Amino acid sequence: METLNVALGERTYSIHVGQGLLEQSELLLPILRQPKVAIVSNTSIAPLYLQRLVSSLKKADIETSTIILPDGECYKNWETLNLIFDQLLAGHCERSTTLMALGGGVVGDITGFAAACYQRGMPFVQVPTTLLSQVDSSVGGKTAINHPHGKNMIGAFYQPKLVLSDTDVLNTLPERELRSGLVEVIKYGLIRDLPFLVWLEDHLERLLKREPAALEYAILRSCQNKADVVMADEHENGERALLNLGHTFGHAIESGMGYGQWLHGEAVAVGTMMAAELSQRLGWISASDVVRIKQLLERVGVPVTGPAMATEKYLQLMQNDKKVQDGRIRLVLFKQVGQAMLSAMATPTEIAGAIEANTRHV
Amino acid sequence: METLNVALGERTYSIHVGQGLLEQSELLLPILRQPKVAIVSNTSIAPLYLQRLVSSLKKADIETSTIILPDGECYKNWETLNLIFDQLLAGHCERSTTLMALGGGVVGDITGFAAACYQRGMPFVQVPTTLLSQVDSSVGGKTAINHPHGKNMIGAFYQPKLVLSDTDVLNTLPERELRSGLVEVIKYGLIRDLPFLVWLEDHLERLLKREPAALEYAILRSCQNKADVVMADEHENGERALLNLGHTFGHAIESGMGYGQWLHGEAVAVGTMMAAELSQRLGWISASDVVRIKQLLERVGVPVTGPAMATEKYLQLMQNDKKVQDGRIRLVLFKQVGQAMLSAMATPTEIAGAIEANTRHV
Repeated sequence: METLNVALGERTYSIHVGQGLLEQSELLLPILRQPKVAIVSNTSIAPLYLQRLVSSLKKADIETSTIILPDGECYKNWETLNLIFDQLLAGHCERSTTLMALGGGVVGDITGFAAACYQRGMPFVQVPTTLLSQVDSSVGGKTAINHPHGKNMIGAFYQPKLVLSDTDVLNTLPERELRSGLVEVIKYGLIRDLPFLVWLEDHLERLLKREPAALEYAILRSCQNKADVVMADEHENGERALLNLGHTFGHAIESGMGYGQWLHGEAVAVGTMMAAELSQRLGWISASDVVRIKQLLERVGVPVTGPAMATEKYLQLMQNDKKVQDGRIRLVLFKQVGQAMLSAMATPTEIAGAIEANTRHV
Repeated sequence: METLNVALGERTYSIHVGQGLLEQSELLLPILRQPKVAIVSNTSIAPLYLQRLVSSLKKADIETSTIILPDGECYKNWETLNLIFDQLLAGHCERSTTLMALGGGVVGDITGFAAACYQRGMPFVQVPTTLLSQVDSSVGGKTAINHPHGKNMIGAFYQPKLVLSDTDVLNTLPERELRSGLVEVIKYGLIRDLPFLVWLEDHLERLLKREPAALEYAILRSCQNKADVVMADEHENGERALLNLGHTFGHAIESGMGYGQWLHGEAVAVGTMMAAELSQRLGWISASDVVRIKQLLERVGVPVTGPAMATEKYLQLMQNDKKVQDGRIRLVLFKQVGQAMLSAMATPTEIAGAIEANTRHV
């Protein structure tokens, strides 16, 4: 097991990464304010891991209750959030009870937001069960639910007290989700860590084969990169926006095609290609840089071309992005491979061109 | 105009108190991130003051949009919160748009929570229009909505960027609400500021007559007291709980009788008498202390005896209080008049006795 400290003053917390962490409930003891934990999971993950986690907590004399949500991004909404509140109140959970998320990004985001709001804030622990949530949503304290008019529109910045990333649980992760998660791993290399990008180009096959040591390294280095950014800019006023490489385009795909049709990493992969294309058209990176990025994403096995969606629809959906300021779309673009920047320079016509260059035409 | 600074590090903000502040939109300029403000008000306050505020903002070249909520504690819920989100999204409000609450505690609480959650947080300004919200909810960053099973159960700690407390708007405040608000003013004297309590005993009639200078003094001193407490304990782990004098009993009355039947200050007045009674039974204050508190509240003209509600119902409702820890009810009690303390010492039987001594028997 390796541990990373995310230093955020009074909100500092640890991320443990390694094998067999579900069985190591004693890791929780330093952060519990009372020996009572409410576990939120979903109908897909609970049958696989909930019993193992509950037994482990019981062995440490921790009282548990469980809240099982339906599985899917389409349930990341008010109704499901209220389901959590109802059950917390019914179970007489207090503001010192700990709320634990056992699941992927959707479970983590909605559970984190519930923890942020229940009695104005209760302690929160993440046990992420997908590669994506281990490398992305478990670091940085972003919690949210979706609104019919926009992804993650309603939420809070709320840090967990602890994250347990057990690499063993990735063995049951569907192949498509593993590949989608690797897009976010590659993102860290692309935006700020060229040596890591080179390592990924060299070791991608080990990750696709789910070798524990390779996974542990990639997860830790991803979390370290994200933590560095978050520590410098907790509330996304500056550098943190770079973590959204490909996301403004990607959110438009996810939202436009209906949440759940495209996996997050798949949409981000296409968005990354659009950002690369646009950066090349602005003269910042070369055509061979674009090919390099494309080849790595193709090896991962994710789409590099967007769905047959009208460019106007992209632009309209992108207007709802949280980075829009004074009506201008601000995008994360490549200054060079391994170094991203936030820019409002691209005109709608230039943005449209980059979208069209990476869209499937029917 | 007098100004109080609430020093909370990067969340520091100012409270301006005085006459004619609605017309002084230039006070907003230092905190606006873009010249766009969405004003939330309700159907009772908007006809009185919205136009005046909008004109004043327009004169300062600030773009405005308005969101009008139904009036009443019973609307402090999910549905109304979503109404705000829907209109913010429809109006293309961004995370740098400022959300402004023009109204009493309900408008302030729900608007503050909306600001805390919309795109994970947008700037928030309070323009409180009741005495209660000027002395209580505008300081301290507590925002919330109610859940069917508990008042203020879902919320956030979220500080405003600015508070404008215009004493002129109190001229249209219904008499009953003025008296209810004075209970919270008196509370500051009771829990931590004996000289202020004496001042209130001497000047109560001036406040009941709404003399601007007396109101400005009482509002500022109340805010100063609350700010001192909040600055020392922003997230209510210690001293801040003392601000809840009478509230655990009071919330049981409000919740048990149906929100809106009892005004908050009325319920808190009864709760304060129950806390005083219990403190006397524990031997901490004298019978004449209890009489002193009762006489002042009677001069204010608020109830000092609770409704005919079963003691079991009180105890059951009090179990949902956010200060409950490990199943024990923690209450704010009097160490002496002018000095409160948080205590879990009282047994359920002792608590029941204090409730019964201050309940109307039918």
